[in-house]
Amino acid sequence: MSLLVVGSIALDSVETPFGRRDDVLGGSATYFSTAASFFGPVRLVATVGDDFPQAHVDFLVARGVDVAGLERRAGRTFRWKGRYEFDLNTAHTLDTQLNVFGDFKPELPAAYLDSRYVFLGNIDPDLQRRVLDQVKAPRFVACDTMNYWISSKRESLLKMLKRVDMLFVNDAEARQLAEEHNIVKAAHRILSFGPRALVVKRGEYGALFFSGDHVFAACAYPLAALFDPTGAGDSFAGGFMGYLARCGREEPDVLRRAIVMGSVLASFAVEQFSLERLATLGRDEIRHRYAELRRLAHFDDLEADLFPAGR
Amino acid sequence: MSLLVVGSIALDSVETPFGRRDDVLGGSATYFSTAASFFGPVRLVATVGDDFPQAHVDFLVARGVDVAGLERRAGRTFRWKGRYEFDLNTAHTLDTQLNVFGDFKPELPAAYLDSRYVFLGNIDPDLQRRVLDQVKAPRFVACDTMNYWISSKRESLLKMLKRVDMLFVNDAEARQLAEEHNIVKAAHRILSFGPRALVVKRGEYGALFFSGDHVFAACAYPLAALFDPTGAGDSFAGGFMGYLARCGREEPDVLRRAIVMGSVLASFAVEQFSLERLATLGRDEIRHRYAELRRLAHFDDLEADLFPAGR
Repeated sequence: MSLLVVGSIALDSVETPFGRRDDVLGGSATYFSTAASFFGPVRLVATVGDDFPQAHVDFLVARGVDVAGLERRAGRTFRWKGRYEFDLNTAHTLDTQLNVFGDFKPELPAAYLDSRYVFLGNIDPDLQRRVLDQVKAPRFVACDTMNYWISSKRESLLKMLKRVDMLFVNDAEARQLAEEHNIVKAAHRILSFGPRALVVKRGEYGALFFSGDHVFAACAYPLAALFDPTGAGDSFAGGFMGYLARCGREEPDVLRRAIVMGSVLASFAVEQFSLERLATLGRDEIRHRYAELRRLAHFDDLEADLFPAGR
Repeated sequence: MSLLVVGSIALDSVETPFGRRDDVLGGSATYFSTAASFFGPVRLVATVGDDFPQAHVDFLVARGVDVAGLERRAGRTFRWKGRYEFDLNTAHTLDTQLNVFGDFKPELPAAYLDSRYVFLGNIDPDLQRRVLDQVKAPRFVACDTMNYWISSKRESLLKMLKRVDMLFVNDAEARQLAEEHNIVKAAHRILSFGPRALVVKRGEYGALFFSGDHVFAACAYPLAALFDPTGAGDSFAGGFMGYLARCGREEPDVLRRAIVMGSVLASFAVEQFSLERLATLGRDEIRHRYAELRRLAHFDDLEADLFPAGR
């Protein structure tokens, strides 16, 4: 079914202990679209400046991403500069230039209005609601956010959360949003704000999924070569939503598989800089890594006669 | 089959954001024995001072722990004082008084020499080897260590590792021992030192098991109430070794279940201070939480027709 994403498109400059890249393709909507495109078409809403290389647009189009909602404006494209130390779980932002992204007012083309699956990437919650207001009959809405919006736009964010099915956050964001350190308690508090499901991303440790009393723990694929964590969260969301839109159902078992699929796409995204790895990724590799994660995580029931006598 | 443990017995003073306890029962051998005792008898080798309350010895004996190897000497019992902040993953040691533990020279009673399963708790690697030298025909030997021994007794530790089947460490210790930040690479380097299996404990994030090319990721039970992390690692090892000794086999599937069992015992141990929770724990609770962990971690295979066409 139809999948819509709104988010950022950026030119990133990234430094990790393993190398650096300048002005490479990045942004939440870019990672999301590319990861989701393995499962079907994606409708993109974003903005770029007149300095944005046409080759990047061509790349997205070739992957089945609908760019009718990609606005190209006079000015420079959003730029982010960051560094990761050996602890690749934390990004250190060196510079942010919003440029044309600074006054982004997302408008959906008419052909997008019937979108059924919607992902609201990490942008101002006012803009997330603005997008949601335009979609006629969304079936499943997921959103991302960050520490900046949690502290500066809390009321607007809470308003938005009442209208979404699922929130993606990392563990620090979950704690901040819930104002509670214990992650289980934080999750239940966030669910009380409105969303019927929550994914807490924990980087190299995997992800926790909460919905009602249902909890699912997905481990991350243990990577021997992790080059650049940029975009891991958005690739996760792209794998999740792409898989879900393709299945067209949201039963607990489907959601579990979708979370593992998110983990699979995120694990590939970080193997190289920018979109380099997702660009060469094949569907058989996705299928293979999913099977590996299943082998990695599964174990048998206990023997019935384990304990000699009741105690 | 017979299970032997050598380690510390301590009187702990612990402060966490949820309360404090002074001079309560602690020590690696204590947590290990209590956790392992659910699965069968345990042979204990440790030392205490003449101030050690007899009630604690009675507690262990009542659980089926053989205290023939418990040496009681003139002097004070080993004391540890520590504090945990809201990030319960890290212990801050405030005071350590080795007392009689300072010149502990473990001697095995004759009846222990035929032990088949051996756990060498976190003590000087010279003493770990001294214990191992006395056991006639060990079938499966596991050991623990810590940052202090890795830096101050590296050569002795490496000598010891050639003789063990499995090493338990946390992720910081794994990185330090391997001198490698990436945990997958670190694990393979440690396996090259001798042990045929390795468990990397990651606190609230679970544990990773490595053996040859076999990897298993066990998630931790997400606890809404975590009171005192002291002894979590030793309870993990106790659940693991107790289960293994009871099964009497070490096939990959048994090792996986043993790791989950370690995770189960650790999850209970941290719910209250000291040994309080393990002391009231029942076997049906263990079985129930194991089943919960299985529901928490499992997911299905992908649909065969997921992708429309090969790419």
